[in-house]
Parts: sequence; structure tokens; C-alpha cells
Amino acid sequence: MTGAERLPASARAILRGDRRALARAITSIENGDAAADPILAAIYGRTHGAPIVGLAGPLGVGKSSLINALVGLLRARGRTVAVVAVDPSSPFSGGSVLGDRIRFEGRVDDPGVFFRSMASRGASGGVAAATLETARLLDAAGFDVVLVETVGSGQVDVAIREIATTRVVVLVPHLGDEVQTLKAGLFEIADVFCVNKTDLPGADIAQRDLVDLVAHGTREGRWTPAVVGTSMTEPRGLEELWNAVEAHEQYLDRTGERATSERHRLTVEIVGIVRDRLGRELSEQLERDPALRGLLDRVVARSLDPRTAAHQLRLAVRRVR
Amino acid sequence: MTGAERLPASARAILRGDRRALARAITSIENGDAAADPILAAIYGRTHGAPIVGLAGPLGVGKSSLINALVGLLRARGRTVAVVAVDPSSPFSGGSVLGDRIRFEGRVDDPGVFFRSMASRGASGGVAAATLETARLLDAAGFDVVLVETVGSGQVDVAIREIATTRVVVLVPHLGDEVQTLKAGLFEIADVFCVNKTDLPGADIAQRDLVDLVAHGTREGRWTPAVVGTSMTEPRGLEELWNAVEAHEQYLDRTGERATSERHRLTVEIVGIVRDRLGRELSEQLERDPALRGLLDRVVARSLDPRTAAHQLRLAVRRVR
Repeated sequence: MTGAERLPASARAILRGDRRALARAITSIENGDAAADPILAAIYGRTHGAPIVGLAGPLGVGKSSLINALVGLLRARGRTVAVVAVDPSSPFSGGSVLGDRIRFEGRVDDPGVFFRSMASRGASGGVAAATLETARLLDAAGFDVVLVETVGSGQVDVAIREIATTRVVVLVPHLGDEVQTLKAGLFEIADVFCVNKTDLPGADIAQRDLVDLVAHGTREGRWTPAVVGTSMTEPRGLEELWNAVEAHEQYLDRTGERATSERHRLTVEIVGIVRDRLGRELSEQLERDPALRGLLDRVVARSLDPRTAAHQLRLAVRRVR
Repeated sequence: MTGAERLPASARAILRGDRRALARAITSIENGDAAADPILAAIYGRTHGAPIVGLAGPLGVGKSSLINALVGLLRARGRTVAVVAVDPSSPFSGGSVLGDRIRFEGRVDDPGVFFRSMASRGASGGVAAATLETARLLDAAGFDVVLVETVGSGQVDVAIREIATTRVVVLVPHLGDEVQTLKAGLFEIADVFCVNKTDLPGADIAQRDLVDLVAHGTREGRWTPAVVGTSMTEPRGLEELWNAVEAHEQYLDRTGERATSERHRLTVEIVGIVRDRLGRELSEQLERDPALRGLLDRVVARSLDPRTAAHQLRLAVRRVR
């Protein structure tokens, strides 16, 4: 491989698919450690374009078993899969992550599967950047598909929207009012709707409601979100779910939207990194730099309000032209 | 009141306790709307130092009923209460927020109670800054206590740590392994541990485990987190819970820690606002500014990696000295 001899040893190990090197690099990303810089720089441009499939949805919809089943399907088709469970870095999520680890233990000897839960509190560019960087490492290591699962809910779902190439929103029957409440937010996120637990009553209605929603909400010439029903008890719908994901990936290539969304993802990533670094530097400067300490002192003394202080600080941190 | 005639009308209305003016201002904060700037500037310095009590904990521990009961206790003691339910701005949390609204409907005619759920996607300084600004408005409007509840879990819990004057971590019996997993994170967050649902088996053990944890983890001369058991079915423990919160508030005043933590909160708030504004400006510049577009183009073309691009961008956005 051209220039391979100039790569850092850890990057070479990752490109060979060395799982321990991969795990160490992901830990560096989590901790916001600069040790990941040369590795990420070296593997950038050595990725194969693995789809990043994000699965989001409320707690209790069965995301975890669905992902486990998807991994089985993909392995049966000879494809390798990496799963990243994005942990919103709360001390409270320990339990579910533990559950995830146990869940994947049965596949621990399969070199075609990689599972990693990621905290992100220390990550240098926030959750979105850390997950993108990790997906890129996994892609470079040769995994065919990267599945990103959110543990818990909330802001990480928003992050999923920014990073996945295909976004699957998992729901269950009995949506009712919820679909109405969520209407606004759903279309921004979903490329594929998956109504899981179709063995429960109300599944037909839920799917029909979503199909209606999709029909009314899709703009001419844009991707029409697919609506798929799945059940892990029978099981059924898994192939349809994966077909819908692949159809969306093909749509991205066919229309050139992949390039647009890739550019957007990179913007989110770069800005996330700069913003977080600036934030850390500012926090330190507010404590140490005499001029900025004075600004903070005035806010503490109530002679200046925080937004005005932020505005003044913003002017002090300007782009040099 | 000195200078009251120079205040914006909306700020005057809020200081009078006008609920509609308050609701409108909070909406402005949520949306990152500059309309809130003069109001926040005007009411800053007109607050009374209401405690901001944050309640965090995993889903299913009964945070909502606990807060409802606390509101009842405080009202019975003649104190006014505002509750802010911080919604991690996911489209999926609609359900629980709806539940919260229904829960508080019984108090809708009580002028001594104010309930507001807050999304924060558009907030100018992120969740923490938006919640602090809202708490300040509620304080200025005359509420004696501000309770902040997290809806869902995750990063918002981390935000709670940054904004509350007293942090209550709510747990349930059967912690077992979880306590071990969470050990590291818990002490950073809790001023008071509340073991809720003490009617369930295992409550004594859970409380004893926490007391042990606290005994081993507290540093000399620092606040020792209180451990309180509550049950909403009997009900019991509510008074003890509130006494523990008040004891912590008194500790803050007695030791001077209130000033230290206030300074920290203001730093978090100001830096959050600057960071998010800079982030928005950078995103726009990356698309529009020819020099920065070129940087992004090189990343898209794979001739420059995102972290290196972020570093170069960071150098272009430097503090003027």
C-alpha cells in the first residue's frame, strides 16, 4: 500500500483490523486525547464508505434486540458489522450498557462483529464528532456496516441525525397522540420508520398512520421514508428493514445526496471540535486571564449580566481577517 | 423601585409575577431568541437567591411523583414553587412531557405553582445556560424555590450538575451492581441521595450501601451527602428529604461555597453562550467564506483530515490580545 510504511504503527494495526488497537484508539477519542490525532489523520482517506446506520427511538421499543437480529442477518449474508452504542455519558446509563455487553457476548469470538459502547463526556468535539471518528476507524478497519445505537434518549438522538448516512426511527404500536406530538420532529430524522413489535395489537394502525404521515410530509423529488413492520418474536420484517436501508443508501449515491450530506457531516464534526476546544480554553482564561477575570467579577457582582458578558467575550475572540 | 421606570415592560411584568410574560420570555430563551436579552439583563440583580434544586436519576425511579409531592409539601408550608422539566430536546420525549403537563393540571389555578417543560434545541448557550436563565427569571418573578427535573436521562443530568445549587440523585432499591458501576459518577453529582420506593424490598440494603459509599467517599471538611428514604405510597420521607436539601443550602451559605459554585455556574453559562454562538457563526462561515470553504473542500477531497482542519480553523479564530 502506498505510503503504508509512513503510517503510525497503531494506524497500521487498525487498518489490519487489529481489535485491541481499535479499542485503544476509540478510548482515546472518548477521552478527548490527542493521541488519536495522528491515527485519525492517517486512516482518513483509507475508508471504504461503509454505511453508518443510526437507530434511534424511545426506550422500550426493542432497539437492542432489533440490532442483535440485524447483526445476525448481515453475518448470514457474509457482511461484517460494527455496532457503536452511544452512551450519553450519564453515570446512570451504566446498567443498560452492561446489558448490551452481555447481549453481545455470544458473538465475542466472531471476528466479523465488533461491539463498542462509547461514553463521550471527554470527547473533544462532543458526541457527534466522537461517533463519526469512531465510525471512520471501524470503516478503515474493514467493517462493511457500522450500526449506531443510542442508549437512553435525548440529545444523542439529535446527534444521530447529524452523523448517520441512513437514520432508522424505531417505534412501537399505540403511538396515538405521540405521533401527533412528534410529527414535527420525525421527518427531520427518519429515512426509515420501523414499527417494531408488530405482534402487539394496533400495529397495522400504527403503520398506516405513519404511511399517511409520510405521504403528506414528503416533498416532491425527495426520498420518501420507508415504513417497515418488524417483530422479533416471530421473527419477521428484518429483511424488509435491511432492504429499506439499502434502498436509501442507493438513493444517496444515485442522486448525489451522499456528497451533500457528507459535506454537512464534516462541517458538524469540524465545528464541534473547534467549538469544544474554544470552550475549554475560554473556561480556563476566565479563571486565569486578569482581563477576563475582571469581566467575570462584574457578572458575579451583578453589575453585568451573563449574556452581555458573553457578547463582550465574543468580541474579544474574533476571527482574524 | 429604583430605576423600575427604565425597565422594559416585559421585565416589569415578570417582576410583578405575570405568568404570561414569564412564559413568553422562557420561550424566547428556548428558541435562542435575542428578544430575551434585554429582559434577562433587566432582571439580573433583581433575584432573591431562590435555591435551584435539581432532581436527577434513571427513568422509572418515580422522580415525577416525588416532585409533585414536594410541591405539595412546600405549598403547605406557604412557599411558592416553580418546576422546570428539562427536556433533552428529542422529538421522542413528547410523551413524558405530556404526562407531566397532565400531572400538574390539578394545580393549574394555584398562583403559587408554576410548571414549565423546556426544550432546548435552539437555546443560545445549550441546556445548562437556558435552564439557568429560566431559573433566574422564576426567581426574579418571586418564586421561593425552583425545582429542576430532567426528563429522560443522559447529558441533561450532566447539565443539572452544572446548574443546581443542591443536586438530589433519586434511586430505587435493587441497585446492586449498578451502585458499583456508578460509584465514580455519583459523588460528582449528589448532594442528597434519595432512595425512593422504600416500600419495595431491598430498600434498607440500598440505603445502607449508599451510607457506606458516602462514608468512604467524602473528603474531610466537605459536605457529606445525605441519604434519605422516601415512599410515595405510604407516604413517608418527604420532610426528611426537604430538610436535607435545606441543610445543604445552609452549608453553602455557612462555608462560603455558595459564592464559589455561583462563580462556576456563571462561567459555565457565559462560556456556553459564547461557544454556541461561535459554533453557529463558524458553520455559516464554512459554507460562505471562500477561505474557509477551501479548507472544507480539502477535507471533503480527503487531502486534509477533520482534526487538522479544526486545528487550522482554531488558529484562524484566535483571541485578540
